[in-house]
Amino acid sequence: MAYDTNNIFAKILRGEIPCTKLYEDDLTLAFMDIMPQTDGHALVIPKEPATTLFELSDEAAAACMATVRRIGNAQKKGLGAEGIVLMQLNGPEAGQTVPHFHIHVIPGSIADLRKPHAAVMADRAHLLGLAEKITAALG
Amino acid sequence: MAYDTNNIFAKILRGEIPCTKLYEDDLTLAFMDIMPQTDGHALVIPKEPATTLFELSDEAAAACMATVRRIGNAQKKGLGAEGIVLMQLNGPEAGQTVPHFHIHVIPGSIADLRKPHAAVMADRAHLLGLAEKITAALG
Repeated sequence: MAYDTNNIFAKILRGEIPCTKLYEDDLTLAFMDIMPQTDGHALVIPKEPATTLFELSDEAAAACMATVRRIGNAQKKGLGAEGIVLMQLNGPEAGQTVPHFHIHVIPGSIADLRKPHAAVMADRAHLLGLAEKITAALG
Repeated sequence: MAYDTNNIFAKILRGEIPCTKLYEDDLTLAFMDIMPQTDGHALVIPKEPATTLFELSDEAAAACMATVRRIGNAQKKGLGAEGIVLMQLNGPEAGQTVPHFHIHVIPGSIADLRKPHAAVMADRAHLLGLAEKITAALG
């Protein structure tokens, strides 16, 4: 699948549209999902242009997993989350809505995946309060 | 969380109980989920003893992602799957049923996650037929 350089995450990476950033390093960016399935729902993306897992480099995949662990630990510590669910969708047939590889890091349970995906916009102040707790716990 | 050496995946890794193996390398094992949410639903596990992502080594996490990609590609090629969903549950609160880190590689869509998890045993012959198509496509 050809990479669409105008997708929303590419624009976030280029700084053309804002995000509520949680963490960034050379290879990855983590930020709050604005249509969360639970409180604290975050996304981890690689900086390299890859639509799905099948175009992602091994190096970026490894870096994403390290960032996912970092964010998950901060969700546990900062929000008191007990369960952490990872979800990653490849292809529109899977339900992928933004064509840039992303891993959902969801404090909660598998039952929360039954809620509608990418459906309801979060209250901005509430989202920022959660983001503050997560980033404070990143240490 | 202390690792339980008697969990079912530890027993599979020790060869004490069978699995329908798809792929194995030094660090990982991939096999069919016997309670699949879709046709072709596979699991990828690390060989090291880790209950969740939070105990897994970076090396094993990277190796798991490489194996996940390999299995996903084979599901696409061998089963004609268009979407590939990854799911990974950390902690009983998330719905994790076997206390050894595992990534679900599910040909299908997010809608399939709304089906009951780890609930219905697959027909053995059907499972073996799907496994044969996936392994043939591993190349």
